[in-house]
Amino acid sequence: MRALVLRDHLRYDPAYPDPFPPPGEALVQVRLAGICNTDLELVAGYMAFAGVLGHEFVGEVLSAPDPAWIGRRVVGDINAACYECATCRAGRHTHCPQRTTLGIFRRDGAFADRLLLPQANLHAVPDSVPDEMAVFAEPLAAACEILEQVTLRPTDRVIVLGDGKLGLLAAAVLRLQGVDLTLVGRHEDKLALAAAWGVPVLRAQGSGAGAPAAAGGSAAAQGPDRDVLAEGSAAVVVECTGNAQGFAEARRLLRPRGTLILKSTYHGDLTLNMSALVVDEITLIGSRCGPFAPALRLLQSGLIDPRPLISATYPLAEGEAAFAHAVRPGALKVLLDPRSA
Amino acid sequence: MRALVLRDHLRYDPAYPDPFPPPGEALVQVRLAGICNTDLELVAGYMAFAGVLGHEFVGEVLSAPDPAWIGRRVVGDINAACYECATCRAGRHTHCPQRTTLGIFRRDGAFADRLLLPQANLHAVPDSVPDEMAVFAEPLAAACEILEQVTLRPTDRVIVLGDGKLGLLAAAVLRLQGVDLTLVGRHEDKLALAAAWGVPVLRAQGSGAGAPAAAGGSAAAQGPDRDVLAEGSAAVVVECTGNAQGFAEARRLLRPRGTLILKSTYHGDLTLNMSALVVDEITLIGSRCGPFAPALRLLQSGLIDPRPLISATYPLAEGEAAFAHAVRPGALKVLLDPRSA
Repeated sequence: MRALVLRDHLRYDPAYPDPFPPPGEALVQVRLAGICNTDLELVAGYMAFAGVLGHEFVGEVLSAPDPAWIGRRVVGDINAACYECATCRAGRHTHCPQRTTLGIFRRDGAFADRLLLPQANLHAVPDSVPDEMAVFAEPLAAACEILEQVTLRPTDRVIVLGDGKLGLLAAAVLRLQGVDLTLVGRHEDKLALAAAWGVPVLRAQGSGAGAPAAAGGSAAAQGPDRDVLAEGSAAVVVECTGNAQGFAEARRLLRPRGTLILKSTYHGDLTLNMSALVVDEITLIGSRCGPFAPALRLLQSGLIDPRPLISATYPLAEGEAAFAHAVRPGALKVLLDPRSA
Repeated sequence: MRALVLRDHLRYDPAYPDPFPPPGEALVQVRLAGICNTDLELVAGYMAFAGVLGHEFVGEVLSAPDPAWIGRRVVGDINAACYECATCRAGRHTHCPQRTTLGIFRRDGAFADRLLLPQANLHAVPDSVPDEMAVFAEPLAAACEILEQVTLRPTDRVIVLGDGKLGLLAAAVLRLQGVDLTLVGRHEDKLALAAAWGVPVLRAQGSGAGAPAAAGGSAAAQGPDRDVLAEGSAAVVVECTGNAQGFAEARRLLRPRGTLILKSTYHGDLTLNMSALVVDEITLIGSRCGPFAPALRLLQSGLIDPRPLISATYPLAEGEAAFAHAVRPGALKVLLDPRSA
């Protein structure tokens, strides 16, 4: 089959070995797949992964232990767990120490004609949800994970830092919670996209000070005295910039007893002032993969339509060009379509 | 009055100016005061505090806006808040940005004949609780703060790292929650003290590997297969060592989705592997001052008796010797008694 393979560097392989399903696993024909920042990190050497990249997909089941799955359109949990160890038995199967992870760790991924996943990982996509929405189920699930981890009060001031793909999807989910939300970013076009969803946005400038964005839904429009970026005013900050400067800004915005949610996996260490963390009783929480069922519900209900995030769609054979596009400043979601030639 | 005053260095002043209560404040005759590690940090330059040290005390009210307080034996919340700002109105008065803090920040402390605190900060000590127990109300309240911040399940494996004063008091409180608790420390005598309370203890050796302590109540006694210090096995770790090595060990012990509670304020920064925090979805939470009412209830009920922690008691005039004692290896709580000559 055709596949985008990482081994030292990324290359298109028109004759990659066909996958053969082991017991319990389904064979899925990929219909559409999305490039995530984690894929870019993997190409840069994160996790030392070698194999077929890709973990965001929608596809059609070609074979499965239960034939009722065959022909169904599906998305899938990317962590393949043992479901036998203490971690799995405790309900934390996305943290199973024996897990493999689609296109990330010891399991070939979705940038190919076909992929394998345990049947238990599959989620049927409702007919009314088109492929172009379903392909966002995985990153939208990751945004929903915030709600699994933190109790948000509708009176909370919540700030999402970073207007990349994950920041935009996090803001789309958080907007539905009735919280006092602001998305802070540096890109006028990306912020305009969130503003069109009804997310209050602020354009960060230079050192992190904010000025109202030109786009509708601007946070500044809610009152002349509202200083969203005042030090120590946010109950929750979701850090999606993926850099140390963003972390420092998140910490500055947080009020005492506030919660800082780390959504980005990036190389490198983080330096924290230990005493300040204790004195201000800050909670810092790492957040990764999330639940697919609520993500699919949000897509089906139409409460979230991520399609404006699509920057471009490439055929599989042009995968290297697709990656080059994905790293371009201003790019959002770049898709790979194995069905197009 | 007599006082232990910090200005560049610590010295005993037999003629420090008498405090005069402003509106709303009570004048308290100190009966007993305790030296905390924070006092040692303050002498080392933390917070650049200048004035009378001391924030752990039990005393008798000499004057108060409400005369019903006069003659009452009291302990007191150390943070004097404005009770008017948004932070106070939200119930977070220990984080009031206008706060002064007894013996720590812009307010003279308890190592003196008399001190001032807002009447609203006072808590009456039940008659059955002797001074030697009541003087522990403040650090015991700080241990209770863990329960205010984190929902502990009785099935959780909880590890307290560090057998200093705060680690011992945290273990004393956590023992009552029915959790699978272990106190890990390096000092046989301190661990023996916790074991006598019924806390399972482990003696850490060298690189952090644990071996059962000789003391009764040893964690190893609960089963031959029980490896308390196995990597990734603890749901909650309370970090009371106050050093970077302790933090690294806490992080190692924590299971995915575990919670690391930082209890120590110490100088210096902390370096964190950002991606690992996100991948393991770890929660890191700073924890400081706590509620006095539950601390007093635990003392009154006899469920916690911290008196075995008392290493020595000095008169106020020998305050410098008391501090020298408090920094000695093996020392636990050193008290100052202004009533003794």
